[in-house]
Amino acid sequence: MPAILQFWFDPASTYAYLSAMRIEALAARRAVEVEWRPFLLGPIFRAQGWDTSPFNVYPAKGRYMVRDIERIAAARGLPPFRLPDPFPARSIKAARLALLAADQECIAPFMRAVFQKAFADGRDISDDDVLRECLRAAGVPEVDAIIAAADETAVKKRLRRETEQALRLGVFGAPTFIAPDGELFWGDDRLEQAIDWTIALRHRRA
Amino acid sequence: MPAILQFWFDPASTYAYLSAMRIEALAARRAVEVEWRPFLLGPIFRAQGWDTSPFNVYPAKGRYMVRDIERIAAARGLPPFRLPDPFPARSIKAARLALLAADQECIAPFMRAVFQKAFADGRDISDDDVLRECLRAAGVPEVDAIIAAADETAVKKRLRRETEQALRLGVFGAPTFIAPDGELFWGDDRLEQAIDWTIALRHRRA
Repeated sequence: MPAILQFWFDPASTYAYLSAMRIEALAARRAVEVEWRPFLLGPIFRAQGWDTSPFNVYPAKGRYMVRDIERIAAARGLPPFRLPDPFPARSIKAARLALLAADQECIAPFMRAVFQKAFADGRDISDDDVLRECLRAAGVPEVDAIIAAADETAVKKRLRRETEQALRLGVFGAPTFIAPDGELFWGDDRLEQAIDWTIALRHRRA
Repeated sequence: MPAILQFWFDPASTYAYLSAMRIEALAARRAVEVEWRPFLLGPIFRAQGWDTSPFNVYPAKGRYMVRDIERIAAARGLPPFRLPDPFPARSIKAARLALLAADQECIAPFMRAVFQKAFADGRDISDDDVLRECLRAAGVPEVDAIIAAADETAVKKRLRRETEQALRLGVFGAPTFIAPDGELFWGDDRLEQAIDWTIALRHRRA
């Protein structure tokens, strides 16, 4: 049985961007498989009483978050960090497209492209043209058909179910990593621990 | 000029406990000096609209925090983590005593003792007997005189000034580390970065 680590993210999440850019390389080195699980933070933040990102609700924390990510981006050789305007971006279409890209086994390159557009290029990821570029960069076939499919009721429902599932699993922010036994890790700075935990589980079962 | 890293903490802070137990060893290895800066989170949380710890305001985050610290404590060989009841503890007297222990060059061992009582033994750190044990363990002379001095107006004012200073510096949680150039790092998981930053500054100046 392959060791699978779930990676729950919202395409508008700043810290999920940091994880998206390194999770595949880190996990592959340890023979762990990554399951990309897009969802929307909006309903989860509303359940906590916020009508926007906590980085907007608490300005001191928001200013710190930008500085923190600037430092981490520099240390990891990522491009200078840009906070998109508006922040958070409206990420619903990117999240629906991520589900469809997963069906084509293209979700990892698609999401890396989306995150880079948002946080390195400062582009608006609710824009169809930007999303089209990302789909193309990820090698997704029939880009226009996929863009259209993202507005279908079945896809909308699928994303809603994913967000409900995230809430049920105890997700309260992004990125969240969930190991095969349900153990939950929150934040890019817990990614290594989540991978270690997943591997330890495999050894315990073997 | 010695490289000095400020370590801002509230004695009731769970993640400050994790830093308190390792900061002196980590910093000494890199020839960095630690300045322990006690303050109270209460007024800072109130400025963010909370009347208690965010771990109580947001229960999912509170449950996760306990699990996160349990895992980290295990990995670092600390005793099993205990969340004191009530949480957060009333830490005002411990914080005032920490200022007085600093005058005697005993703040590090005093605070390690206080944090251990709170988060390993589950003791109430607002209790004078518990605080007396911590002062004794830290080698503070004239324990009873110090306990009495903690209620003097001058000491109360001093702690209030420290908390105001924390707010001015942009502190919004604990632990917070501030490098000599004012660069701010939040959270036990940023301690290594804060030390690296402090050392890089020294090299830049040399």
